[in-house]
Amino acid sequence: MPADRSLPIGVFDSGVGGLTVVRALMERLPLENIVYFGDTARVPYGIKSVATIAHYTEQITDFLMARGVKMLIVACNTMAAVAGDVVRRQAGEVPVLDVIDAGAQAAVAGSRGRAIGVIGTPTTINSNAYARRMHALDAGVRVYSQACPLFVPLVEEGWLDHPVTRLTALEYLKPVLAEQVDSLVLGCTHYPLLKPLLMDVVGRDVRLVDSAITVAEQAAQTLARLDLANPGAQHSATQFCVTDVPLRFQTIGERFLGRSLGQIERVDW
Amino acid sequence: MPADRSLPIGVFDSGVGGLTVVRALMERLPLENIVYFGDTARVPYGIKSVATIAHYTEQITDFLMARGVKMLIVACNTMAAVAGDVVRRQAGEVPVLDVIDAGAQAAVAGSRGRAIGVIGTPTTINSNAYARRMHALDAGVRVYSQACPLFVPLVEEGWLDHPVTRLTALEYLKPVLAEQVDSLVLGCTHYPLLKPLLMDVVGRDVRLVDSAITVAEQAAQTLARLDLANPGAQHSATQFCVTDVPLRFQTIGERFLGRSLGQIERVDW
Repeated sequence: MPADRSLPIGVFDSGVGGLTVVRALMERLPLENIVYFGDTARVPYGIKSVATIAHYTEQITDFLMARGVKMLIVACNTMAAVAGDVVRRQAGEVPVLDVIDAGAQAAVAGSRGRAIGVIGTPTTINSNAYARRMHALDAGVRVYSQACPLFVPLVEEGWLDHPVTRLTALEYLKPVLAEQVDSLVLGCTHYPLLKPLLMDVVGRDVRLVDSAITVAEQAAQTLARLDLANPGAQHSATQFCVTDVPLRFQTIGERFLGRSLGQIERVDW
Repeated sequence: MPADRSLPIGVFDSGVGGLTVVRALMERLPLENIVYFGDTARVPYGIKSVATIAHYTEQITDFLMARGVKMLIVACNTMAAVAGDVVRRQAGEVPVLDVIDAGAQAAVAGSRGRAIGVIGTPTTINSNAYARRMHALDAGVRVYSQACPLFVPLVEEGWLDHPVTRLTALEYLKPVLAEQVDSLVLGCTHYPLLKPLLMDVVGRDVRLVDSAITVAEQAAQTLARLDLANPGAQHSATQFCVTDVPLRFQTIGERFLGRSLGQIERVDW
């Protein structure tokens, strides 16, 4: 039996970062319903062990499956890097997309020089998941990775165009730019907010790959292919679920989403 | 019955930061045994709700009490700010010290102009715990507080004397310095690692109050007063307990402790 096309797309993240994916979905697929899950009580995942992350990921997948979704999007690079298999196993027939897969595909497809930089949190970079996916698509591509641990706190502080952020970006990107990459993958859902500043720092010759936008594009293609797109006209809605008091999520979230969040549901685990 | 004087002092924190207190204790009280508890699986506390922090704090206190300690030191500003009462209730007869109380006392005692600055994480600053304790000691003191959310990630990145950190400190401290404070309380256990840079930024006329050092001094006085000091000669030991895989704790911890950590015990909750 095909899924109900009015069911929402389930998007999940360890906290607020995945809202950049929600924003991209709202722009690319404005007729779709969305349910977002942010595990704000247990954020950040990036410093936890793989077993712990896998366990949390399983719990969230079950929650969204029980709500009823027609597609799942792993909007957290850390979860996608170490627990993507867990999601696919729990999801059964429901299609699963993730930001690493989408980012890797877009990076390889658009790279002329086949020299690609990847920036992300320490856990994502240490997992080497982007390099592995890109090599599976094109064994000849050269990948240069760089962890940028200060970018997330800088974004959450709201210093999106600040001299401190610029100086930090120059320092982090120096070794990657020295390899003359033609593309730079933003391997963390916080980084799209730094896009204007990063474009300045890397210059016009380097293409930025925003995995929020690429995963939204992949979602559009997958829905069309599986005939799962929500047929127009009626009102579409976005629902937000978080695991801790939503105050901080609300404040920071509106910066990520570029609009107000409306009603937020607290899930008490 | 007086406590066994060879029992360890229990020190606890949400993660690695409390090691600055352990370091100060090792220097001020080299004959004492210490057991350190870092809740690395659930760090950071600073963005969690008060009820959650109180629950975690109770759990850690029980763990250390069951091990047997002759004194407890809350080396986490967030826990001290919102759950100090919980620790004192669970500890019964065992004396409890905390970094906020120690820092507030030292700040008020040493301030000539009675204008005091306090820097810390957003949770600590929002709790207003330092200002309240200082006002209980001296109602005439003026307190100027400033949250510095980027200092913890900068310390953990190891950028202790970096242009980015200097620029960040200048920006955060500008409003506090404009109030002509004569003292600045380092209201977060990560900040003592920034002391050389901060001394430069605030200038010679502002005294830095390091709550790691002040709580160690308070511990020495309390042990002497209660006749609880460990009588010399024998070998003293420091034991470390953490709740997640200790790899990251070890790497970053050695920078905080200024020496190698030795054996680390994993507590599986």
